[in-house]
Amino acid sequence: MMDLISKLWLMKRELVSDGFDQALDSLAREIPMDIHEYPTGESCWTWKIPEKWTCQEAYLESLDGKRLIDYANHPLHVVSYSLPYEGVLYRKDLLPHLHIHPKLPDAIPFMFKYYERDWGLCLPQTLLDSLTEDAYRVVIHTTFEPGILKVGEILIPGVSDETFILVAHLCHPGMVNDDLTGVVVGLEAARDLLHFSLIQGQPYYTYRLLILPETIGSLAYLSHQEDLIPKMVGGLFLEMLGNASPHALQGSFQPDSQPDKCLSSTLRGLDTDGYLGAYRSVIGNDERQFNAPGVRVPMLSLSRVEPPESPTRPYREYHSSLDTPAIISQERLDESKGVLLGLLQAWENNQYIVNNFKGEVFCSGYGIWIDYRTDPEGHRLLFRIMERCDGEHTVADIATELNTSFQIVWRVVSLLEAKELVWLSRIPHPTDPRKRG
Amino acid sequence: MMDLISKLWLMKRELVSDGFDQALDSLAREIPMDIHEYPTGESCWTWKIPEKWTCQEAYLESLDGKRLIDYANHPLHVVSYSLPYEGVLYRKDLLPHLHIHPKLPDAIPFMFKYYERDWGLCLPQTLLDSLTEDAYRVVIHTTFEPGILKVGEILIPGVSDETFILVAHLCHPGMVNDDLTGVVVGLEAARDLLHFSLIQGQPYYTYRLLILPETIGSLAYLSHQEDLIPKMVGGLFLEMLGNASPHALQGSFQPDSQPDKCLSSTLRGLDTDGYLGAYRSVIGNDERQFNAPGVRVPMLSLSRVEPPESPTRPYREYHSSLDTPAIISQERLDESKGVLLGLLQAWENNQYIVNNFKGEVFCSGYGIWIDYRTDPEGHRLLFRIMERCDGEHTVADIATELNTSFQIVWRVVSLLEAKELVWLSRIPHPTDPRKRG
Amino acid sequence: MMDLISKLWLMKRELVSDGFDQALDSLAREIPMDIHEYPTGESCWTWKIPEKWTCQEAYLESLDGKRLIDYANHPLHVVSYSLPYEGVLYRKDLLPHLHIHPKLPDAIPFMFKYYERDWGLCLPQTLLDSLTEDAYRVVIHTTFEPGILKVGEILIPGVSDETFILVAHLCHPGMVNDDLTGVVVGLEAARDLLHFSLIQGQPYYTYRLLILPETIGSLAYLSHQEDLIPKMVGGLFLEMLGNASPHALQGSFQPDSQPDKCLSSTLRGLDTDGYLGAYRSVIGNDERQFNAPGVRVPMLSLSRVEPPESPTRPYREYHSSLDTPAIISQERLDESKGVLLGLLQAWENNQYIVNNFKGEVFCSGYGIWIDYRTDPEGHRLLFRIMERCDGEHTVADIATELNTSFQIVWRVVSLLEAKELVWLSRIPHPTDPRKRG
Repeated sequence: MMDLISKLWLMKRELVSDGFDQALDSLAREIPMDIHEYPTGESCWTWKIPEKWTCQEAYLESLDGKRLIDYANHPLHVVSYSLPYEGVLYRKDLLPHLHIHPKLPDAIPFMFKYYERDWGLCLPQTLLDSLTEDAYRVVIHTTFEPGILKVGEILIPGVSDETFILVAHLCHPGMVNDDLTGVVVGLEAARDLLHFSLIQGQPYYTYRLLILPETIGSLAYLSHQEDLIPKMVGGLFLEMLGNASPHALQGSFQPDSQPDKCLSSTLRGLDTDGYLGAYRSVIGNDERQFNAPGVRVPMLSLSRVEPPESPTRPYREYHSSLDTPAIISQERLDESKGVLLGLLQAWENNQYIVNNFKGEVFCSGYGIWIDYRTDPEGHRLLFRIMERCDGEHTVADIATELNTSFQIVWRVVSLLEAKELVWLSRIPHPTDPRKRG
Repeated sequence: MMDLISKLWLMKRELVSDGFDQALDSLAREIPMDIHEYPTGESCWTWKIPEKWTCQEAYLESLDGKRLIDYANHPLHVVSYSLPYEGVLYRKDLLPHLHIHPKLPDAIPFMFKYYERDWGLCLPQTLLDSLTEDAYRVVIHTTFEPGILKVGEILIPGVSDETFILVAHLCHPGMVNDDLTGVVVGLEAARDLLHFSLIQGQPYYTYRLLILPETIGSLAYLSHQEDLIPKMVGGLFLEMLGNASPHALQGSFQPDSQPDKCLSSTLRGLDTDGYLGAYRSVIGNDERQFNAPGVRVPMLSLSRVEPPESPTRPYREYHSSLDTPAIISQERLDESKGVLLGLLQAWENNQYIVNNFKGEVFCSGYGIWIDYRTDPEGHRLLFRIMERCDGEHTVADIATELNTSFQIVWRVVSLLEAKELVWLSRIPHPTDPRKRG
Repeated sequence: MMDLISKLWLMKRELVSDGFDQALDSLAREIPMDIHEYPTGESCWTWKIPEKWTCQEAYLESLDGKRLIDYANHPLHVVSYSLPYEGVLYRKDLLPHLHIHPKLPDAIPFMFKYYERDWGLCLPQTLLDSLTEDAYRVVIHTTFEPGILKVGEILIPGVSDETFILVAHLCHPGMVNDDLTGVVVGLEAARDLLHFSLIQGQPYYTYRLLILPETIGSLAYLSHQEDLIPKMVGGLFLEMLGNASPHALQGSFQPDSQPDKCLSSTLRGLDTDGYLGAYRSVIGNDERQFNAPGVRVPMLSLSRVEPPESPTRPYREYHSSLDTPAIISQERLDESKGVLLGLLQAWENNQYIVNNFKGEVFCSGYGIWIDYRTDPEGHRLLFRIMERCDGEHTVADIATELNTSFQIVWRVVSLLEAKELVWLSRIPHPTDPRKRG
């Protein structure tokens, strides 16, 4: 995954841009991908597709012609979607157009003015501090023109057309952890899912991985695929999966949904350092569009984020030129891919558990007895899980109710299923004699 | 309002009495009013209309003819609905018939024995302490006779026949804050509502302000208007609105009702000194009849009451001859009227918010963007409100869920409505594509 | 009850055994009883009826013929369902087959190996410590043969076929508190219920008291009476009712069920030393089969158990030869019978309370006024109970909501019923005018 990231990270991946298209084309050579195209000006519910933006050249120089900032050196030196500008300004008139990072004096900040119509340059604070002359010359050659917003979609067809959506964003030029890591982890997981389907049979759910420019990409896709929305039963946004922070799983707007219960209880069993956060409490991305009114897909998000009390939340290099390949590692990307596949595996397995048995099971007879004298907690858990196998609880419901991991419940349920004591159902199937009445 | 109170306060406003009728007639000259009449003995569910009670004359004198207590001086000197009595008694036989205030030595207490059939006089403790002679002469000339209990009703017709009920009681002779203040504040607010209807169009809800004798007045009205009860969607009892205590809003028996959510979240935005209390935790009045079984109107109550920990709760002069015009002020009456109208305004506005938009709104495009860098709390609130605009939440639901004021939510909703991003509905209108299925 | 216990306690009451049959026959002479028979090998859902087990003789002796342990002295000396064995063993090979009590050095422990197929002897630790010779001779003559598992059923027919189930187990040889006390308390209560039915009319519910071997007895009965299960509206397991610990009422798997609310709120009023525990938190017995999937009868259990923090929980002599008539008393058995009958009385009385009245009741007029000046708590409770009499709350619902005892609510409700202000209904009967449509 590191190779792919190296190839893509410095591309000028603006919302609608040649850089974005090149990056998407590179990915499309890795895995079968449909590319949806939405032209500039096209309506996306309350939004419109923006123009294609290109920066041909931009720099700041002293009046004696010394280049102080040059876009050719780093794509973050120009505010994304900056207006063009050329002229000599007094220092005081220039300053409002120069942006620095509030906490990292050596980093160029990531600034965007998609809808504000202004021009600007970005630079490290250390450089800003050295600008002591009276006047400087600014050159920003940017163009706005009709273009095509692109959304890549990787489809993993399932037995059912009920769909689980994965999303990562490919925009943010010159940055890596946010969110090329989400893109490549999602892509590698999708590859495994496709491969997997050849050897172990199709997954039950259909999966779609969307690779898009943030926010407007999701809106473009959703507003042009409205008939798909009722089939979307859940989703997961992927971001910042290479840095050294622990995994955070942010719940959806509907915290009691099956995706929330399933993924949350599964993370406990996959990553003991991982933690959970409520909707909007960890980080905001495209999951906002999916959870929003009129869409209401319970979409969670998985990211590596410093804990709530940390002063560097979400992570130190966020939205800066320090977000480079140096802060991520292949090992962590692999680990995150493992977590993602573990979450999806649980999602596939999350069904209603219907008891073939009545009363308590004769555990000794079925070879599943756990002795309370040698393993009291195991014994207790076995019985507390079995007594909830009634066609009204999913695996995730039971794990949530017992405050344990999906995996622990799944292990018991698998054993019961192997013994034909239970069967699994995608819909509730109550066995209480009063309810079957 | 002070003038009206001055005119009414010393009238002998007993449950069924000439004094009550005079006071109600005075009010009927102020505003169009229907007067309902219920004759003595008429059944009101489990109750009966009491007799008309009149005290012609009452006094206590020493055996040498010196008047010590005289009803002519203050209407509280005789227990309301006291039996007649005339005779000379030994001091020890007299004492059980003399009533003092437990905490205010200089005040005459308010005592009533509507259903106990006894006679009695009331006096300040300081006077009682000076009664050291062996015997006294008592004269109480009271009569019980068939009469007419009267209930005044001011009707403000709305677009809908769904009715919001306001109630205040006019009984309690010789007292002001309890509850002439509720009567005049209600009356002035009703006048504004009627006036308002001429210039800004009719209110949506029909309002009825009932001015009545406590408890039995409500029972008389409700038991004779049973067909109105299913149309009563909420209500508010008004009492003690002139003293210097903070506003207390007491919830109804159904704390999750729309009136409870709406009025409670609105008070936060109207009066930062105001506080909330659960049903039966602040003060008990006619809202008990409306909340009771077989009626079940969610009726709250608004009053000025000392906080729970105060030793003088509900207020120092409660049920005594010190409850005079001196303890209230026009300014506070105006302020309470403002609070009442603010609550009713919110009640009118409390509708389901139906999104015309899907996904998140393009806030910059609609000019409603709040920058998270300059106003993070405003930004957060804007999005948390918008994401609940789904045809399933009222303004009050959202304010309650977000633990904020009705006004803050209403401001955002009004903006969205002005931009045609939402519309308001009196009934739920879910827009979740899974629910519209 | 002590006489009956004296007669039964040393009988060799194994799951399927002559001793169990003798004990059940003794009980059947006390009260009319149906005896259900289930032959060895018969399927009971996932279980099978075990073989009849008999121990003809068993002892441990030194090589010089001195008897150290003898089954003739106490039925606990042999592991229940021990395989036969005869031979001389070195001490080290013998030790794994000798069982002691973990906490009581002078007691023989109760050990059973129903499904493990092993042999073993039980003895006090003090005796074990004295076994210092190199080798010993073991003789265990036991037989396994086809037999009949028996379940005694005492039927108290009610007006309705809705059934409340009482269960106690008769197995556990040589022990008394666990659970002969449950058996005799249940039996005496059943006798009272039958008697009662002759003089005061039939109970509303049908009651069935089952006397059976633990677990497999309940499974045998339930799996052969499946058509009865939907009629079982609740139940109570009875155990350990003679020792000096306080009463513990363990809730069912469905803590919001009417049996849970009713019995829990009633215990408060019957026994101020009693306490409540959640399902599976006090002691596990046959209520597990009734609460299990496919059965789902809300069955609670009543027992005398040391509090959660006690080191001797459930009670000191549990599962040992010290569980003798000496640790129980007739007085405590009578007391527990009183508690049981009190719980059943409440269960009979637990109905929906439907108001004939509307508004608040004219309490003075009906002679049920409680003066708030002399009894503020009584006054408050009277009104809080009355205002919940709406055809949607049972007595148990109100007691639970007000955090008070069933008895306190019942007293008020009885008074209201006597005054014809309410009537009682077995099904909800809402009187809210909005709900009556």
